[in-house]
Amino acid sequence: MLVVQKYGGSSVADAARIKHVAARVIRRLREGDQVVVVVSAMGDTTDELIKLAYSVADDPAPRELDMLLSTGEQMSVALLAMAMRAQGQEAVGLTGHQAGIFTRAHYGSGRISRVEADRVRAELAAGRVPIIAGFQGTTEEMEIVTLGRGASDTTAVALAVALGAGRCENCKDVTGIYTTDPRIEPRARQLKDITYEEMLELATQGSQVMHNRAVELASVYGLPVLVTSSMVDAPGTLIHGESELEERNRVRGIAHDIDVAKITVRQVPDRPGVAAHIFEPLAEAGISVDTIVQNASDHSLTDLTFTIARQDLKRAEALMPSICAAVGAPDYSANGGLGKVSIVGVGIQTAHGYAARMFRVLFDAGINIELITTSEIRLTCIIAAERVPDAVRALHSAFELETPE
Amino acid sequence: MLVVQKYGGSSVADAARIKHVAARVIRRLREGDQVVVVVSAMGDTTDELIKLAYSVADDPAPRELDMLLSTGEQMSVALLAMAMRAQGQEAVGLTGHQAGIFTRAHYGSGRISRVEADRVRAELAAGRVPIIAGFQGTTEEMEIVTLGRGASDTTAVALAVALGAGRCENCKDVTGIYTTDPRIEPRARQLKDITYEEMLELATQGSQVMHNRAVELASVYGLPVLVTSSMVDAPGTLIHGESELEERNRVRGIAHDIDVAKITVRQVPDRPGVAAHIFEPLAEAGISVDTIVQNASDHSLTDLTFTIARQDLKRAEALMPSICAAVGAPDYSANGGLGKVSIVGVGIQTAHGYAARMFRVLFDAGINIELITTSEIRLTCIIAAERVPDAVRALHSAFELETPE
Repeated sequence: MLVVQKYGGSSVADAARIKHVAARVIRRLREGDQVVVVVSAMGDTTDELIKLAYSVADDPAPRELDMLLSTGEQMSVALLAMAMRAQGQEAVGLTGHQAGIFTRAHYGSGRISRVEADRVRAELAAGRVPIIAGFQGTTEEMEIVTLGRGASDTTAVALAVALGAGRCENCKDVTGIYTTDPRIEPRARQLKDITYEEMLELATQGSQVMHNRAVELASVYGLPVLVTSSMVDAPGTLIHGESELEERNRVRGIAHDIDVAKITVRQVPDRPGVAAHIFEPLAEAGISVDTIVQNASDHSLTDLTFTIARQDLKRAEALMPSICAAVGAPDYSANGGLGKVSIVGVGIQTAHGYAARMFRVLFDAGINIELITTSEIRLTCIIAAERVPDAVRALHSAFELETPE
Repeated sequence: MLVVQKYGGSSVADAARIKHVAARVIRRLREGDQVVVVVSAMGDTTDELIKLAYSVADDPAPRELDMLLSTGEQMSVALLAMAMRAQGQEAVGLTGHQAGIFTRAHYGSGRISRVEADRVRAELAAGRVPIIAGFQGTTEEMEIVTLGRGASDTTAVALAVALGAGRCENCKDVTGIYTTDPRIEPRARQLKDITYEEMLELATQGSQVMHNRAVELASVYGLPVLVTSSMVDAPGTLIHGESELEERNRVRGIAHDIDVAKITVRQVPDRPGVAAHIFEPLAEAGISVDTIVQNASDHSLTDLTFTIARQDLKRAEALMPSICAAVGAPDYSANGGLGKVSIVGVGIQTAHGYAARMFRVLFDAGINIELITTSEIRLTCIIAAERVPDAVRALHSAFELETPE
């Protein structure tokens, strides 16, 4: 089987771990599989590079920031290829550009437009393990573009799809997907498998085990993804399309996020184009809006609330006076101290009682709900950031997630 | 005038220096010149990357080492471009690949085969300062190749030639070229100008102010190169083709090197092909041979001595038994503790007395001469490494180099 293995930053954080990964890949080859490797930057390299950028410029130019950050993964692929060759296995490190990862020039948040995998296939055919820099691609004009934090996962899935790999393996410092964050709820339990949709909600809702664009892409192409440990031999959690829905607890996990900010635009005249006037300037500034809730109110005026990542709040607030003026709203309010907690599982929306039980659990814990949002397979409550751990534990227990399936 | 400025590693060693260089380039633009910038990796980055490589592999694969090392310059160009843009000047960082620096695939010691400067010209035309990664290029197959230590100087000269620049400026942590190393002889004096040939001998003989391939290239194209300080405003030393030979002291400087190893192959049968049998295996191993001296001796046997960099001695010695066997020599001897000292100046070879005076000075200082080699404009003695500083001081004084011209 052809497998694409992705190793995250903590799996290649130092020389010892790089050598360990090299040995692990070689062991896998001996078992008869073909392996293509995707790696992230070592440990905290990306954060250190960002710090360096901010030491020379208050607001580093995005093109140059991408050029800087992409060196982190280039270092990793070179080092892992060296380590493999030192262990007797031919290997070749490839930049995103060399590996044919093409992107559009949206610096800092590029999207993979196509993968030209000829070079990777040729290296495989020649018996060399291709080791590819995650997180980066090239435009048609040879500009280096990074794909956003955590996007090495996406590189791995895109390559697996382009190569027709049997599986993508996301090798991490965790052993798999848990019912919730074990640092918050020690009784959290590892799942054997999970559907793409459930994983997507868990990832989107702050469980940072795998990048959501990677899960989406795997879902579109039906590519199985195994989340597993790079350090210990453990079965991992398989993310795939099938699941035995009726046999199990519908709530599969509790997701959380403590970096949420909320902005409410008050008394917005309710007329066409209002949403565009509010959200276009935010999009242009690269601010992702998460939940949007609009409450009807009197006199054709409405309150419109949306959430964003807390780190974007300052930039969003800078835009708000002109946005309010454009839509004729008298003012807005902002709250940067929020978090969210979600229950995730295929079927919870269609089954009775899950929402009511969630609200009752939070009420009993004395936790006030600021906003509620739902999807097909998720129920999310926005609450005060400092109450998130309590909420996670209360919900994990109420939905009996510590009990083995 | 179009100027190519090259900044070495110590000139961009930290955020403060990078900002300083950005301001310095902008000041130059305001004076009406067009500037293209070439930068090296920050401070000790290259050494740290090499250390990292050796932490994962005893003998890192050269291709991967180049991939790793090239990240150092990529970081520098991104940071300098950010810093310039933060100071209000449009600028764009370019890898060797993006800047069209093409090389052949001799990893670790690539040679620039051509420069396709279209992108650089287009950036200049658009009012952006092109900031180009030194020390690296690309093959036609998009493989990253480094050009050897110090080769950022060569990148700068090659770009200056390709762009038809009026001058290349090598901005360093020294203010210019000195008659000898001021750390050894405090009375060393800065030269106003120097010929390419003299500079070449000084560089080749260990005065590490400028890379000799860069000087050669500048010489071939008659490109004036100003060696100047990146930190303080000082006139610098101009390297060019003209010099007022008759007016001045013929000895322009004392060069030295303390990292010399000598190998003597004893009693080599004196027949055709011997030199090839000795030096081809060394060349294939990437070991540069410097001086070669052959002494005739009795019975058609000859002793052949050559010098190499001390760091190559271990690898060279590994090859020697098979080399001796191939040429029919009974054995060889090696000495890793040597250095050299040279007097350099156009005309010293043709003028009388310079050689005799040099040998007398060393004799008076009690310094034994192991080998003598000469060029058109240089006289070099190989001596014990630990006597090199004494030799430099004695010669500097004997040839009155502290006296202003």
